[in-house]
Amino acid sequence: MPTATAIRAALANGEMTCEEVARACIERIRERERAVQAWHFFDPDLAIAQARALDRVGQRGPLAGVPVGIKDIIETADMPTEYGSPIFLGARPARDATCVAMARNAGSVVMGKTVTTEFANFTPGKTRNPHDAARTPGGSSSGSAAAVAAGMVPLAIGTQTTASTIRPASFCGIHGYRPTFDDFGCSGVMEASHSLDTIGLFARSLDDIALFRDALLGVESIAIPAETPAPRIGFCRTHLWSRVDPDVQTIIERSVQTLADAGAQVTEVALPADFDEIASIHQRISGFEFTRSLAAEIEHHWNDISERLRAGRIADGHACSYEQYRAACDAAERMRTMLAPIADPFDVLVTAASTGEAPVGLDTTGDASMCLIWTTMYVPALSLPVLRGPNGLPLGLQVIGKRHHDRALFAAARWIENILSYEDAS
Amino acid sequence: MPTATAIRAALANGEMTCEEVARACIERIRERERAVQAWHFFDPDLAIAQARALDRVGQRGPLAGVPVGIKDIIETADMPTEYGSPIFLGARPARDATCVAMARNAGSVVMGKTVTTEFANFTPGKTRNPHDAARTPGGSSSGSAAAVAAGMVPLAIGTQTTASTIRPASFCGIHGYRPTFDDFGCSGVMEASHSLDTIGLFARSLDDIALFRDALLGVESIAIPAETPAPRIGFCRTHLWSRVDPDVQTIIERSVQTLADAGAQVTEVALPADFDEIASIHQRISGFEFTRSLAAEIEHHWNDISERLRAGRIADGHACSYEQYRAACDAAERMRTMLAPIADPFDVLVTAASTGEAPVGLDTTGDASMCLIWTTMYVPALSLPVLRGPNGLPLGLQVIGKRHHDRALFAAARWIENILSYEDAS
Repeated sequence: MPTATAIRAALANGEMTCEEVARACIERIRERERAVQAWHFFDPDLAIAQARALDRVGQRGPLAGVPVGIKDIIETADMPTEYGSPIFLGARPARDATCVAMARNAGSVVMGKTVTTEFANFTPGKTRNPHDAARTPGGSSSGSAAAVAAGMVPLAIGTQTTASTIRPASFCGIHGYRPTFDDFGCSGVMEASHSLDTIGLFARSLDDIALFRDALLGVESIAIPAETPAPRIGFCRTHLWSRVDPDVQTIIERSVQTLADAGAQVTEVALPADFDEIASIHQRISGFEFTRSLAAEIEHHWNDISERLRAGRIADGHACSYEQYRAACDAAERMRTMLAPIADPFDVLVTAASTGEAPVGLDTTGDASMCLIWTTMYVPALSLPVLRGPNGLPLGLQVIGKRHHDRALFAAARWIENILSYEDAS
Repeated sequence: MPTATAIRAALANGEMTCEEVARACIERIRERERAVQAWHFFDPDLAIAQARALDRVGQRGPLAGVPVGIKDIIETADMPTEYGSPIFLGARPARDATCVAMARNAGSVVMGKTVTTEFANFTPGKTRNPHDAARTPGGSSSGSAAAVAAGMVPLAIGTQTTASTIRPASFCGIHGYRPTFDDFGCSGVMEASHSLDTIGLFARSLDDIALFRDALLGVESIAIPAETPAPRIGFCRTHLWSRVDPDVQTIIERSVQTLADAGAQVTEVALPADFDEIASIHQRISGFEFTRSLAAEIEHHWNDISERLRAGRIADGHACSYEQYRAACDAAERMRTMLAPIADPFDVLVTAASTGEAPVGLDTTGDASMCLIWTTMYVPALSLPVLRGPNGLPLGLQVIGKRHHDRALFAAARWIENILSYEDAS
């Protein structure tokens, strides 16, 4: 599967038509879907009709002719949206979500709806890891990550409330991007937690991530330079480092050493003890808000909600008083203020994107520890597919930027990729 | 029309059934709707069915049996949602918006969908001011405000991105409440501007506002004490004071003097010169975000968008670069930081809720100047219907609290109302 950037070039040069691009994706889906199960809704005729329409009117827009997958908690006016729940079987929204409308306006072909965990929480869907069908692809944006990793589409949209983009990107060996909080409108994206949710993007190259972001934001596309200066890197294990597989700890530490050897200024960064509470803070905020967002389903469809969701996020939310919730929100805001001067001397922070390779088994989407801090901090993050785990499976390096400095994050990530991809290939 | 609090008492005492309450509202709607035109969708059978169901199962919840109106940019699973636009004629969402689900879970009867301006922007709907049919009810939550003011429902939900709750509350002579930004999830509420939107509440008493807020937030109902201590008041004319009708300036100044005479500690508060830019900052943020939120309609339904919206918010958005947008967001955030120490010595700030009485004519929803500052500052605000304008029409006093201290705002508002309602009656 070529990248979106390569597809754009081939289309612009007249080497391919949009229909041919769509057909290549459809072919790939037919080959791999049985093993991967990335799609919740897929109608090849609908995809081809969109591609033909683009061929007819002439391609316009930065994503013209590029197929994208859309996580099924994101609403689409021409396809069902079921939110990973049997409660919404066949539901069809009236409007496209903002990100879907922006993708279409940029010329992309919506290939279908990708599998999400139940309401973007913990109960997995059917999707398997394209690198090993016995392992989870991660979640909650399971289908979006797996579809891109399996070469079914070059781009896909997911969301992140805890680890739902960065973790599956790490497990599936692709690029995942969680933008600065509130940079993108989330209209038409089912809220899990309104003060933590963002959309998330998946792609097969860093250039594609930048292209995709600019298109969905409706701003001029600015390519990341091919060469960027060596960044100042803060290596931040976090207080949750003990959750990281020891072999993976070594792999991450070695990669950071490689970056230092290549000329990056690397400093170890510790977070203040206040951050020890962050998992419970995240749990309170997301639980309280989720039980409000899911109020109708909790009231009227209790039996159609999985036991895991009831006993997990919903029980968390019901156990959390408004005072506890507000205290958690205030604590999170204090930590954001605390993080700024800690991160300030660096261009980026670097850490693991997941606690290990994708675990064996499909009954969990993996450990969220390495992501929930950064999600709660509202900072942008990338998972770069530049590492291999002890079993030879993909492993992401997480690179974390500053709020609203997502382009600077991309520039630093470019340098890191140039070094580590070289290592990997050598 | 009794208040929600009174309806709850009558229902709890067995003096009325939910069906009787609903029928009384329906009767009132039948009497007044021709003149007021508050409703975009109203099906009495559906309302009665909800009320009967409540009577059958026994009333539960803090709003059990209380009829509410829902602004038509807020999605409802059992009624159409048309967003004030012909583009969505007959559209029917799959899920209730969070605030609708919370209202239903609290036991309320959804009476119907109230008129909104086009996509909650400037092009008015059909609604008229219940106090004078030649005047605007204000907007964009025109029908919600008018329905409550006309005694058709005790409670209604609107939204505010600029002045869309506080202004119509002022024009219609009812209580309007714009909560702290981000306190309520907005899932299922069409985004106008994701970094400015909140829901807004309308009621006929301060007690009802508190009851309604607690119910929609899913927290324990805590009544505002009947007597509260005299607050420290900052009287903030703002740099936009010259837009306020001179007679109204005098009325507001006199009411503030009354509060001082009654024992409030009143100090005049000026905002720093930076705030002079706030109207253009608000315009950039709302324009940029709105053109993304409305991306699909702009692309595919241009001819069904009003000329005023195209030439207004959409043109603003298209003229605003990402850099200008980000600079505006940063400036707004700096002002929020600046406001905190200015507001800190006071319990509340007080100013006009609108620049005057509801203007004559239905082609505009009025001047937003007195609200856009506070909207952009993310602070909670109330419009208290305690004043009369030069023509004897309603005029709100705006009382502004601190972020996340909405209950403290209610307590100060109680004291203010106790003084000024007394004045008004004497």
